[in-house]
Amino acid sequence: MTFETLSTARAYGGTQGVYRHQSTATGTPMTFSVYVPPHDEGARLPVVWYLSGLTCTHANVTDKGDYRRACAELGLIFVAPDTSPRGEDVADDPAYDFGQGAGFYVDAMQAPWAPHFRMWSYVTEELPPLIAAHFPADMARQSIMGHSMGGHGALTIGLTLPERFRAVSAFAPIVAPSRVPWGEKALGGYLGDDRAAWRRHDAVSLIEDGARVPALLVDQGDADQFLEEQLKPHLLAEACAAAGIDLTLRMQPGYDHSYYFIATFMADHLAWHAERLK
Amino acid sequence: MTFETLSTARAYGGTQGVYRHQSTATGTPMTFSVYVPPHDEGARLPVVWYLSGLTCTHANVTDKGDYRRACAELGLIFVAPDTSPRGEDVADDPAYDFGQGAGFYVDAMQAPWAPHFRMWSYVTEELPPLIAAHFPADMARQSIMGHSMGGHGALTIGLTLPERFRAVSAFAPIVAPSRVPWGEKALGGYLGDDRAAWRRHDAVSLIEDGARVPALLVDQGDADQFLEEQLKPHLLAEACAAAGIDLTLRMQPGYDHSYYFIATFMADHLAWHAERLK
Repeated sequence: MTFETLSTARAYGGTQGVYRHQSTATGTPMTFSVYVPPHDEGARLPVVWYLSGLTCTHANVTDKGDYRRACAELGLIFVAPDTSPRGEDVADDPAYDFGQGAGFYVDAMQAPWAPHFRMWSYVTEELPPLIAAHFPADMARQSIMGHSMGGHGALTIGLTLPERFRAVSAFAPIVAPSRVPWGEKALGGYLGDDRAAWRRHDAVSLIEDGARVPALLVDQGDADQFLEEQLKPHLLAEACAAAGIDLTLRMQPGYDHSYYFIATFMADHLAWHAERLK
Repeated sequence: MTFETLSTARAYGGTQGVYRHQSTATGTPMTFSVYVPPHDEGARLPVVWYLSGLTCTHANVTDKGDYRRACAELGLIFVAPDTSPRGEDVADDPAYDFGQGAGFYVDAMQAPWAPHFRMWSYVTEELPPLIAAHFPADMARQSIMGHSMGGHGALTIGLTLPERFRAVSAFAPIVAPSRVPWGEKALGGYLGDDRAAWRRHDAVSLIEDGARVPALLVDQGDADQFLEEQLKPHLLAEACAAAGIDLTLRMQPGYDHSYYFIATFMADHLAWHAERLK
Protein backbone atom coordinates (compact mmCIF):
# COMPACT_ATOMS: atom_id res chain seq x y z
CA MET A 1 0.00 0.00 0.00
CA THR A 2 1.55 3.27 -1.07
CA PHE A 3 -1.47 5.29 -2.09
CA GLU A 4 -4.80 3.56 -2.33
CA THR A 5 -8.18 4.86 -3.51
CA LEU A 6 -10.89 3.48 -1.22
CA SER A 7 -13.81 5.13 -3.00
CA THR A 8 -14.69 7.92 -5.38
CA ALA A 9 -18.06 9.37 -6.28
CA ARG A 10 -19.28 12.19 -8.44
CA ALA A 11 -20.63 15.04 -6.31
CA TYR A 12 -21.68 18.54 -7.38
CA GLY A 13 -19.86 17.99 -10.64
CA GLY A 14 -16.57 17.13 -8.94
CA THR A 15 -15.19 14.04 -7.24
CA GLN A 16 -15.39 13.09 -3.58
CA GLY A 17 -12.73 10.51 -2.84
CA VAL A 18 -11.50 8.61 0.19
CA TYR A 19 -7.87 7.50 0.17
CA ARG A 20 -5.46 5.52 2.33
CA HIS A 21 -1.69 5.37 2.51
CA GLN A 22 1.02 4.03 4.78
CA SER A 23 2.19 7.02 6.80
CA THR A 24 5.84 7.29 7.73
CA ALA A 25 4.99 10.01 10.26
CA THR A 26 2.59 7.85 12.26
CA GLY A 27 3.82 4.42 11.22
CA THR A 28 0.24 3.41 10.49
CA PRO A 29 -2.15 3.37 7.57
CA MET A 30 -3.92 6.74 7.42
CA THR A 31 -7.22 7.48 5.71
CA PHE A 32 -8.30 10.89 4.44
CA SER A 33 -10.85 12.38 2.09
CA VAL A 34 -10.40 14.88 -0.73
CA TYR A 35 -13.04 16.70 -2.71
CA VAL A 36 -11.92 17.99 -6.09
CA PRO A 37 -14.40 20.41 -7.65
CA PRO A 38 -15.18 20.53 -11.36
CA HIS A 39 -12.30 22.25 -13.13
CA ASP A 40 -10.71 22.77 -16.51
CA GLU A 41 -8.20 20.20 -17.70
CA GLY A 42 -4.75 21.15 -16.46
CA ALA A 43 -6.01 23.68 -13.91
CA ARG A 44 -4.39 23.89 -10.48
CA LEU A 45 -6.78 24.71 -7.65
CA PRO A 46 -6.33 26.16 -4.17
CA VAL A 47 -6.47 23.75 -1.24
CA VAL A 48 -8.49 24.14 1.96
CA TRP A 49 -7.48 21.88 4.84
CA TYR A 50 -10.18 20.90 7.32
CA LEU A 51 -9.10 19.45 10.66
CA SER A 52 -11.73 17.56 12.60
CA GLY A 53 -12.59 17.42 16.27
CA LEU A 54 -12.54 14.82 19.03
CA THR A 55 -13.83 11.32 18.15
CA CYS A 56 -13.99 12.17 14.43
CA THR A 57 -12.41 10.52 11.43
CA HIS A 58 -12.31 12.02 7.93
CA ALA A 59 -15.84 10.69 7.53
CA ASN A 60 -17.74 13.06 9.81
CA VAL A 61 -17.17 16.23 7.83
CA THR A 62 -17.23 14.27 4.58
CA ASP A 63 -20.75 13.11 5.43
CA LYS A 64 -22.11 16.10 7.30
CA GLY A 65 -20.02 19.16 6.46
CA ASP A 66 -22.08 20.54 3.55
CA TYR A 67 -18.88 21.81 1.92
CA ARG A 68 -19.14 20.33 -1.56
CA ARG A 69 -21.58 22.79 -3.10
CA ALA A 70 -19.51 25.77 -1.97
CA CYS A 71 -16.24 24.13 -3.02
CA ALA A 72 -17.72 23.37 -6.43
CA GLU A 73 -18.88 26.96 -6.85
CA LEU A 74 -15.63 28.46 -5.54
CA GLY A 75 -13.20 26.01 -7.15
CA LEU A 76 -11.64 24.76 -3.92
CA ILE A 77 -10.05 21.39 -3.16
CA PHE A 78 -11.10 20.27 0.33
CA VAL A 79 -8.84 17.90 2.29
CA ALA A 80 -10.03 16.17 5.48
CA PRO A 81 -7.41 14.12 7.37
CA ASP A 82 -8.10 11.76 10.25
CA THR A 83 -7.61 13.01 13.83
CA SER A 84 -5.06 10.43 15.00
CA PRO A 85 -3.27 7.24 14.11
CA ARG A 86 -5.43 4.17 14.61
CA GLY A 87 -5.05 0.44 14.95
CA GLU A 88 -4.66 -2.41 17.40
CA ASP A 89 -0.92 -1.80 17.71
CA VAL A 90 -1.44 1.90 18.46
CA ALA A 91 -1.70 3.12 22.04
CA ASP A 92 -5.18 4.13 23.10
CA ASP A 93 -7.15 5.41 26.04
CA PRO A 94 -10.76 4.60 26.89
CA ALA A 95 -11.66 8.28 27.17
CA TYR A 96 -13.13 10.01 24.12
CA ASP A 97 -10.82 12.98 24.55
CA PHE A 98 -7.43 11.24 24.56
CA GLY A 99 -5.71 8.60 22.46
CA GLN A 100 -7.16 7.38 19.21
CA GLY A 101 -9.52 9.96 17.70
CA ALA A 102 -7.90 12.69 19.79
CA GLY A 103 -4.43 13.37 18.40
CA PHE A 104 -4.59 17.14 19.07
CA TYR A 105 -2.31 17.85 16.09
CA VAL A 106 0.91 17.49 18.08
CA ASP A 107 3.95 15.23 17.83
CA ALA A 108 3.81 13.30 21.10
CA MET A 109 6.94 13.15 23.22
CA GLN A 110 5.70 10.86 25.98
CA ALA A 111 5.33 7.08 26.19
CA PRO A 112 3.30 5.26 25.00
CA TRP A 113 2.18 7.94 22.51
CA ALA A 114 5.44 9.11 20.94
CA PRO A 115 5.89 6.33 18.34
CA HIS A 116 2.61 6.91 16.48
CA PHE A 117 0.93 10.12 17.65
CA ARG A 118 2.70 12.50 15.27
CA MET A 119 -0.22 14.37 13.77
CA TRP A 120 1.68 17.69 13.54
CA SER A 121 4.26 16.13 11.24
CA TYR A 122 1.62 14.15 9.44
CA VAL A 123 -0.56 17.15 8.59
CA THR A 124 2.16 19.74 8.00
CA GLU A 125 4.90 17.62 6.38
CA GLU A 126 3.76 14.28 5.09
CA LEU A 127 0.31 14.83 3.69
CA PRO A 128 0.94 18.05 1.68
CA PRO A 129 3.33 16.44 -0.85
CA LEU A 130 0.90 13.56 -1.21
CA ILE A 131 -1.88 16.02 -2.04
CA ALA A 132 0.41 17.83 -4.45
CA ALA A 133 1.34 14.58 -6.18
CA HIS A 134 -2.12 13.06 -6.57
CA PHE A 135 -4.52 15.98 -7.03
CA PRO A 136 -4.69 19.11 -9.23
CA ALA A 137 -3.56 21.28 -6.31
CA ASP A 138 -1.89 24.66 -6.37
CA MET A 139 0.19 24.32 -3.21
CA ALA A 140 1.05 28.02 -3.38
CA ARG A 141 -2.56 28.69 -2.43
CA GLN A 142 -3.49 26.87 0.77
CA SER A 143 -5.70 27.71 3.71
CA ILE A 144 -6.80 25.86 6.83
CA MET A 145 -9.89 25.51 8.99
CA GLY A 146 -11.15 23.17 11.66
CA HIS A 147 -13.69 22.39 14.34
CA SER A 148 -13.15 22.19 18.09
CA MET A 149 -9.91 20.20 18.56
CA GLY A 150 -9.47 20.68 14.82
CA GLY A 151 -10.02 24.40 15.26
CA HIS A 152 -7.14 24.26 17.70
CA GLY A 153 -5.14 22.45 15.05
CA ALA A 154 -6.04 24.96 12.34
CA LEU A 155 -5.18 27.94 14.55
CA THR A 156 -1.86 26.56 15.80
CA ILE A 157 -0.76 25.32 12.38
CA GLY A 158 -1.93 28.51 10.68
CA LEU A 159 -0.14 30.69 13.23
CA THR A 160 3.04 28.62 12.92
CA LEU A 161 3.09 28.53 9.11
CA PRO A 162 1.63 31.89 8.04
CA GLU A 163 3.64 31.86 4.83
CA ARG A 164 1.88 28.66 3.80
CA PHE A 165 -1.71 29.34 4.82
CA ARG A 166 -3.31 32.45 3.43
CA ALA A 167 -6.43 32.10 5.52
CA VAL A 168 -7.24 30.49 8.88
CA SER A 169 -10.70 29.96 10.32
CA ALA A 170 -12.39 27.81 12.90
CA PHE A 171 -15.71 26.60 14.19
CA ALA A 172 -15.92 26.48 18.00
CA PRO A 173 -12.16 26.04 18.41
CA ILE A 174 -10.21 25.16 21.52
CA VAL A 175 -8.24 28.41 21.56
CA ALA A 176 -6.19 27.95 24.72
CA PRO A 177 -5.68 24.25 25.44
CA SER A 178 -3.19 25.05 28.22
CA ARG A 179 -6.03 26.55 30.21
CA VAL A 180 -8.90 24.08 29.72
CA PRO A 181 -9.46 20.47 30.83
CA TRP A 182 -9.41 18.87 27.36
CA GLY A 183 -6.17 20.61 26.51
CA GLU A 184 -4.40 20.15 29.82
CA LYS A 185 -5.09 16.43 29.64
CA ALA A 186 -3.96 16.11 26.05
CA LEU A 187 -0.93 18.39 26.08
CA GLY A 188 0.19 16.97 29.43
CA GLY A 189 -0.31 13.42 28.22
CA TYR A 190 1.33 13.81 24.83
CA LEU A 191 3.96 16.45 25.55
CA GLY A 192 4.73 16.00 29.26
CA ASP A 193 4.58 18.23 32.30
CA ASP A 194 6.79 21.04 31.05
CA ARG A 195 4.26 23.68 30.14
CA ALA A 196 6.84 25.64 28.16
CA ALA A 197 6.58 22.90 25.52
CA TRP A 198 2.84 23.42 25.34
CA ARG A 199 3.02 27.04 24.19
CA ARG A 200 3.58 26.31 20.52
CA HIS A 201 0.47 24.12 20.59
CA ASP A 202 -1.75 26.76 22.14
CA ALA A 203 -3.11 29.46 19.84
CA VAL A 204 -3.35 32.10 22.54
CA SER A 205 0.17 31.39 23.77
CA LEU A 206 1.49 31.46 20.19
CA ILE A 207 0.00 34.91 19.70
CA GLU A 208 1.37 36.07 23.05
CA ASP A 209 4.76 34.79 21.90
CA GLY A 210 4.61 36.78 18.68
CA ALA A 211 2.94 34.55 16.08
CA ARG A 212 0.80 36.50 13.64
CA VAL A 213 -1.69 35.97 10.86
CA PRO A 214 -3.35 38.72 8.85
CA ALA A 215 -6.88 37.75 9.83
CA LEU A 216 -8.88 35.09 11.63
CA LEU A 217 -12.52 34.08 11.27
CA VAL A 218 -14.14 32.17 14.13
CA ASP A 219 -17.77 31.13 14.52
CA GLN A 220 -18.97 29.99 17.92
CA GLY A 221 -22.46 28.86 18.89
CA ASP A 222 -23.73 30.40 22.08
CA ALA A 223 -25.64 27.21 22.95
CA ASP A 224 -22.45 25.14 22.65
CA GLN A 225 -22.27 22.79 25.62
CA PHE A 226 -18.47 23.17 25.75
CA LEU A 227 -18.33 26.95 25.46
CA GLU A 228 -17.64 27.90 29.06
CA GLU A 229 -15.38 25.10 30.17
CA GLN A 230 -13.39 24.10 27.10
CA LEU A 231 -13.54 26.75 24.38
CA LYS A 232 -13.32 30.21 25.99
CA PRO A 233 -13.21 32.25 22.78
CA HIS A 234 -12.78 35.46 24.80
CA LEU A 235 -9.18 34.38 25.46
CA LEU A 236 -8.53 34.43 21.72
CA ALA A 237 -10.32 37.77 21.38
CA GLU A 238 -8.15 39.29 24.10
CA ALA A 239 -4.92 37.91 22.61
CA CYS A 240 -5.83 39.11 19.11
CA ALA A 241 -6.77 42.56 20.41
CA ALA A 242 -3.45 42.87 22.21
CA ALA A 243 -1.54 41.64 19.16
CA GLY A 244 -3.41 43.65 16.55
CA ILE A 245 -4.71 40.56 14.76
CA ASP A 246 -7.92 41.20 12.83
CA LEU A 247 -10.20 38.60 14.44
CA THR A 248 -13.79 38.24 13.35
CA LEU A 249 -15.44 36.31 16.19
CA ARG A 250 -19.12 35.69 15.57
CA MET A 251 -21.26 34.38 18.39
CA GLN A 252 -24.08 32.51 16.69
CA PRO A 253 -27.27 32.49 18.73
CA GLY A 254 -28.81 29.10 19.45
CA TYR A 255 -26.14 26.98 17.78
CA ASP A 256 -24.53 24.02 19.54
CA HIS A 257 -21.25 22.16 18.95
CA SER A 258 -22.56 19.81 16.26
CA TYR A 259 -22.09 19.44 12.53
CA TYR A 260 -25.43 21.20 12.09
CA PHE A 261 -23.61 24.29 13.32
CA ILE A 262 -20.55 23.67 11.16
CA ALA A 263 -22.65 23.02 8.05
CA THR A 264 -24.66 26.19 8.55
CA PHE A 265 -21.57 28.40 8.39
CA MET A 266 -19.34 26.27 6.17
CA ALA A 267 -20.19 28.14 2.96
CA ASP A 268 -19.45 31.47 4.67
CA HIS A 269 -16.04 30.22 5.73
CA LEU A 270 -15.22 28.80 2.34
CA ALA A 271 -16.17 32.06 0.63
CA TRP A 272 -13.92 33.91 3.08
CA HIS A 273 -11.10 31.50 2.31
CA ALA A 274 -11.66 31.71 -1.44
CA GLU A 275 -11.42 35.50 -1.29
CA ARG A 276 -7.96 35.13 0.26
CA LEU A 277 -6.88 32.34 -2.08
CA LYS A 278 -7.54 34.24 -5.30
CA MET B 1 -44.02 7.31 25.17
CA THR B 2 -46.51 9.18 23.02
CA PHE B 3 -44.33 11.71 21.26
CA GLU B 4 -40.76 12.10 22.35
CA THR B 5 -38.08 14.54 21.22
CA LEU B 6 -34.76 12.70 20.93
CA SER B 7 -32.70 15.70 19.85
CA THR B 8 -32.97 19.16 18.38
CA ALA B 9 -30.29 21.43 16.99
CA ARG B 10 -30.23 24.81 15.32
CA ALA B 11 -29.34 24.48 11.63
CA TYR B 12 -29.43 27.13 8.91
CA GLY B 13 -31.55 29.28 11.18
CA GLY B 14 -34.18 26.57 11.69
CA THR B 15 -34.42 23.45 13.81
CA GLN B 16 -33.38 19.91 12.91
CA GLY B 17 -35.11 17.51 15.26
CA VAL B 18 -35.30 13.76 15.71
CA TYR B 19 -38.47 12.34 17.27
CA ARG B 20 -39.89 9.02 18.38
CA HIS B 21 -43.40 7.80 19.03
CA GLN B 22 -45.25 4.55 19.59
CA SER B 23 -46.83 3.73 16.25
CA THR B 24 -50.21 2.07 16.15
CA ALA B 25 -49.71 1.20 12.48
CA THR B 26 -46.53 -0.80 13.05
CA GLY B 27 -46.97 -1.64 16.71
CA THR B 28 -43.41 -0.47 17.37
CA PRO B 29 -41.61 2.70 18.36
CA MET B 30 -40.84 4.67 15.21
CA THR B 31 -38.18 7.35 14.82
CA PHE B 32 -38.25 10.14 12.27
CA SER B 33 -36.60 13.49 11.65
CA VAL B 34 -38.14 16.86 10.86
CA TYR B 35 -36.43 20.04 9.76
CA VAL B 36 -38.38 23.21 10.38
CA PRO B 37 -36.91 26.24 8.60
CA PRO B 38 -36.81 29.73 10.07
CA HIS B 39 -40.28 31.22 9.88
CA ASP B 40 -42.48 33.95 11.24
CA GLU B 41 -44.39 33.25 14.43
CA GLY B 42 -47.71 31.68 13.57
CA ALA B 43 -46.76 30.84 9.98
CA ARG B 44 -47.80 27.49 8.47
CA LEU B 45 -45.29 26.00 6.08
CA PRO B 46 -45.53 23.44 3.26
CA VAL B 47 -44.29 19.93 3.99
CA VAL B 48 -41.95 17.83 1.84
CA TRP B 49 -41.84 14.12 2.64
CA TYR B 50 -38.61 12.28 1.92
CA LEU B 51 -38.73 8.48 1.79
CA SER B 52 -35.40 6.68 2.14
CA GLY B 53 -33.95 3.65 0.42
CA LEU B 54 -32.87 0.16 1.41
CA THR B 55 -30.88 -0.17 4.66
CA CYS B 56 -31.56 3.46 5.63
CA THR B 57 -33.12 4.98 8.69
CA HIS B 58 -34.17 8.63 9.04
CA ALA B 59 -30.51 9.35 9.80
CA ASN B 60 -28.96 8.85 6.37
CA VAL B 61 -30.66 11.73 4.62
CA THR B 62 -30.61 13.78 7.81
CA ASP B 63 -26.82 13.49 7.86
CA LYS B 64 -26.01 13.45 4.17
CA GLY B 65 -28.93 14.89 2.24
CA ASP B 66 -27.81 18.56 2.03
CA TYR B 67 -31.46 19.65 2.22
CA ARG B 68 -31.39 22.14 5.06
CA ARG B 69 -29.97 25.16 3.24
CA ALA B 70 -32.53 24.84 0.46
CA CYS B 71 -35.38 24.21 2.90
CA ALA B 72 -34.33 27.27 4.90
CA GLU B 73 -34.25 29.43 1.79
CA LEU B 74 -37.52 28.05 0.39
CA GLY B 75 -39.43 27.79 3.67
CA LEU B 76 -40.08 24.04 3.52
CA ILE B 77 -40.58 21.57 6.35
CA PHE B 78 -38.70 18.34 5.55
CA VAL B 79 -39.92 15.06 7.06
CA ALA B 80 -37.82 11.87 6.92
CA PRO B 81 -39.45 8.69 8.25
CA ASP B 82 -37.72 5.38 8.85
CA THR B 83 -37.93 2.65 6.20
CA SER B 84 -39.49 -0.11 8.30
CA PRO B 85 -40.51 -1.13 11.79
CA ARG B 86 -37.56 -2.26 13.90
CA GLY B 87 -36.92 -4.20 17.06
CA GLU B 88 -36.14 -7.60 18.45
CA ASP B 89 -39.80 -8.61 18.37
CA VAL B 90 -40.14 -7.61 14.73
CA ALA B 91 -39.62 -10.16 11.96
CA ASP B 92 -36.41 -9.74 10.03
CA ASP B 93 -34.38 -11.26 7.25
CA PRO B 94 -30.61 -11.41 6.97
CA ALA B 95 -30.67 -9.87 3.49
CA TYR B 96 -30.22 -6.11 3.16
CA ASP B 97 -33.13 -5.87 0.73
CA PHE B 98 -35.88 -7.49 2.78
CA GLY B 99 -37.17 -7.22 6.34
CA GLN B 100 -36.01 -4.48 8.69
CA GLY B 101 -34.69 -1.48 6.75
CA ALA B 102 -36.60 -2.61 3.66
CA GLY B 103 -40.30 -2.02 4.28
CA PHE B 104 -41.02 -1.02 0.67
CA TYR B 105 -43.86 1.28 1.79
CA VAL B 106 -46.51 -1.45 1.71
CA ASP B 107 -48.85 -2.98 4.26
CA ALA B 108 -47.68 -6.58 4.42
CA MET B 109 -50.29 -9.32 4.07
CA GLN B 110 -48.04 -12.32 4.57
CA ALA B 111 -46.68 -13.99 7.72
CA PRO B 112 -44.47 -13.17 9.52
CA TRP B 113 -44.51 -9.58 8.17
CA ALA B 114 -48.16 -8.59 8.40
CA PRO B 115 -48.28 -7.60 12.09
CA HIS B 116 -45.62 -4.86 11.91
CA PHE B 117 -44.67 -4.11 8.31
CA ARG B 118 -47.36 -1.54 7.63
CA MET B 119 -45.32 1.33 6.22
CA TRP B 120 -48.03 2.39 3.76
CA SER B 121 -50.45 3.07 6.59
CA TYR B 122 -47.71 4.53 8.71
CA VAL B 123 -46.57 7.08 6.14
CA THR B 124 -49.93 7.93 4.60
CA GLU B 125 -52.25 7.76 7.63
CA GLU B 126 -50.49 7.80 10.96
CA LEU B 127 -47.59 10.17 10.57
CA PRO B 128 -49.35 13.08 8.81
CA PRO B 129 -51.61 13.99 11.75
CA LEU B 130 -48.61 13.76 14.05
CA ILE B 131 -46.75 16.22 11.84
CA ALA B 132 -49.79 18.47 11.74
CA ALA B 133 -50.09 18.40 15.53
CA HIS B 134 -46.47 19.01 16.47
CA PHE B 135 -45.04 21.26 13.76
CA PRO B 136 -46.05 24.50 12.02
CA ALA B 137 -47.23 22.56 8.97
CA ASP B 138 -49.72 23.58 6.32
CA MET B 139 -51.09 20.14 5.48
CA ALA B 140 -52.92 21.57 2.48
CA ARG B 141 -49.50 21.97 0.88
CA GLN B 142 -47.61 18.67 0.82
CA SER B 143 -45.26 17.05 -1.63
CA ILE B 144 -43.22 13.85 -1.63
CA MET B 145 -39.84 12.65 -2.84
CA GLY B 146 -37.59 9.68 -2.22
CA HIS B 147 -34.53 7.68 -3.20
CA SER B 148 -34.38 4.19 -4.68
CA MET B 149 -36.85 2.10 -2.62
CA GLY B 150 -38.01 5.46 -1.24
CA GLY B 151 -38.39 6.76 -4.78
CA HIS B 152 -40.69 3.81 -5.33
CA GLY B 153 -42.57 4.85 -2.19
CA ALA B 154 -42.81 8.48 -3.29
CA LEU B 155 -44.05 7.55 -6.76
CA THR B 156 -46.62 5.02 -5.60
CA ILE B 157 -47.91 7.20 -2.76
CA GLY B 158 -47.91 10.31 -4.94
CA LEU B 159 -49.77 8.52 -7.73
CA THR B 160 -52.29 7.09 -5.27
CA LEU B 161 -52.94 10.36 -3.42
CA PRO B 162 -52.61 13.07 -6.09
CA GLU B 163 -55.04 15.33 -4.25
CA ARG B 164 -52.70 15.35 -1.27
CA PHE B 165 -49.29 15.70 -2.91
CA ARG B 166 -48.83 18.63 -5.25
CA ALA B 167 -45.41 17.47 -6.39
CA VAL B 168 -43.68 14.11 -6.69
CA SER B 169 -40.01 13.54 -7.45
CA ALA B 170 -37.42 10.84 -7.05
CA PHE B 171 -33.73 10.09 -7.12
CA ALA B 172 -32.89 6.79 -8.82
CA PRO B 173 -36.29 5.24 -8.02
CA ILE B 174 -37.39 1.65 -8.37
CA VAL B 175 -40.10 2.44 -10.92
CA ALA B 176 -41.42 -1.05 -11.65
CA PRO B 177 -40.83 -3.34 -8.66
CA SER B 178 -42.94 -6.09 -10.23
CA ARG B 179 -40.30 -6.46 -12.92
CA VAL B 180 -37.01 -6.27 -11.01
CA PRO B 181 -35.35 -8.59 -8.46
CA TRP B 182 -35.54 -6.24 -5.45
CA GLY B 183 -39.23 -5.64 -6.05
CA GLU B 184 -40.24 -9.18 -6.92
CA LYS B 185 -38.65 -10.39 -3.70
CA ALA B 186 -40.23 -7.68 -1.57
CA LEU B 187 -43.71 -7.58 -3.09
CA GLY B 188 -43.84 -11.38 -3.20
CA GLY B 189 -42.63 -11.65 0.36
CA TYR B 190 -44.85 -8.97 1.84
CA LEU B 191 -47.94 -9.21 -0.37
CA GLY B 192 -47.93 -12.82 -1.56
CA ASP B 193 -47.87 -14.50 -4.94
CA ASP B 194 -50.93 -12.86 -6.45
CA ARG B 195 -49.36 -10.27 -8.73
CA ALA B 196 -52.63 -8.43 -9.11
CA ALA B 197 -52.11 -7.19 -5.55
CA TRP B 198 -48.72 -5.82 -6.52
CA ARG B 199 -50.03 -3.37 -9.10
CA ARG B 200 -50.98 -0.64 -6.67
CA HIS B 201 -47.44 -0.79 -5.32
CA ASP B 202 -45.76 -0.46 -8.70
CA ALA B 203 -45.54 3.03 -10.20
CA VAL B 204 -45.57 1.83 -13.79
CA SER B 205 -48.54 -0.46 -13.15
CA LEU B 206 -50.39 2.34 -11.36
CA ILE B 207 -49.95 4.59 -14.38
CA GLU B 208 -51.02 1.78 -16.71
CA ASP B 209 -54.10 1.37 -14.52
CA GLY B 210 -55.01 5.04 -14.80
CA ALA B 211 -53.25 6.82 -11.92
CA ARG B 212 -52.12 10.32 -12.83
CA VAL B 213 -50.08 13.19 -11.48
CA PRO B 214 -49.55 16.52 -13.23
CA ALA B 215 -45.78 16.20 -13.40
CA LEU B 216 -42.87 14.05 -12.23
CA LEU B 217 -39.21 14.91 -11.77
CA VAL B 218 -36.70 12.03 -11.70
CA ASP B 219 -32.91 12.23 -11.56
CA GLN B 220 -30.91 9.11 -12.35
CA GLY B 221 -27.14 8.73 -12.36
CA ASP B 222 -25.81 6.91 -15.40
CA ALA B 223 -23.02 5.33 -13.31
CA ASP B 224 -25.55 3.90 -10.86
CA GLN B 225 -24.62 0.28 -10.16
CA PHE B 226 -28.31 -0.66 -9.93
CA LEU B 227 -29.49 1.10 -13.06
CA GLU B 228 -29.80 -1.83 -15.46
CA GLU B 229 -31.04 -4.56 -13.16
CA GLN B 230 -33.18 -2.81 -10.54
CA LEU B 231 -34.16 0.70 -11.62
CA LYS B 232 -35.02 0.67 -15.33
CA PRO B 233 -36.19 4.29 -15.63
CA HIS B 234 -37.11 3.74 -19.28
CA LEU B 235 -40.14 1.77 -18.07
CA LEU B 236 -41.38 4.89 -16.27
CA ALA B 237 -40.61 7.02 -19.30
CA GLU B 238 -42.64 4.71 -21.53
CA ALA B 239 -45.57 4.59 -19.13
CA CYS B 240 -45.60 8.38 -18.71
CA ALA B 241 -45.40 8.92 -22.46
CA ALA B 242 -48.35 6.60 -23.04
CA ALA B 243 -50.35 8.24 -20.25
CA GLY B 244 -49.52 11.85 -21.09
CA ILE B 245 -47.75 12.48 -17.77
CA ASP B 246 -45.19 15.27 -17.96
CA LEU B 247 -42.08 13.38 -16.82
CA THR B 248 -38.75 15.13 -16.57
CA LEU B 249 -36.21 12.30 -16.46
CA ARG B 250 -32.65 13.54 -16.24
CA MET B 251 -29.81 11.11 -16.78
CA GLN B 252 -26.92 12.56 -14.79
CA PRO B 253 -23.54 11.62 -16.23
CA GLY B 254 -21.07 10.02 -13.86
CA TYR B 255 -23.32 9.87 -10.81
CA ASP B 256 -23.79 6.69 -8.79
CA HIS B 257 -26.52 5.57 -6.36
CA SER B 258 -25.10 7.29 -3.28
CA TYR B 259 -26.05 10.26 -1.16
CA TYR B 260 -23.41 12.27 -3.03
CA PHE B 261 -25.75 11.98 -6.00
CA ILE B 262 -28.85 12.80 -3.96
CA ALA B 263 -27.18 15.79 -2.30
CA THR B 264 -26.04 17.20 -5.62
CA PHE B 265 -29.57 17.45 -6.97
CA MET B 266 -31.50 17.91 -3.72
CA ALA B 267 -31.71 21.69 -3.98
CA ASP B 268 -33.01 21.40 -7.56
CA HIS B 269 -35.75 19.05 -6.42
CA LEU B 270 -36.70 21.20 -3.47
CA ALA B 271 -36.93 24.29 -5.68
CA TRP B 272 -39.16 22.34 -8.06
CA HIS B 273 -41.35 21.27 -5.15
CA ALA B 274 -41.47 24.78 -3.70
CA GLU B 275 -42.66 26.14 -7.02
CA ARG B 276 -45.61 23.73 -6.86
CA LEU B 277 -46.29 24.32 -3.17
CA LYS B 278 -46.68 28.09 -3.43
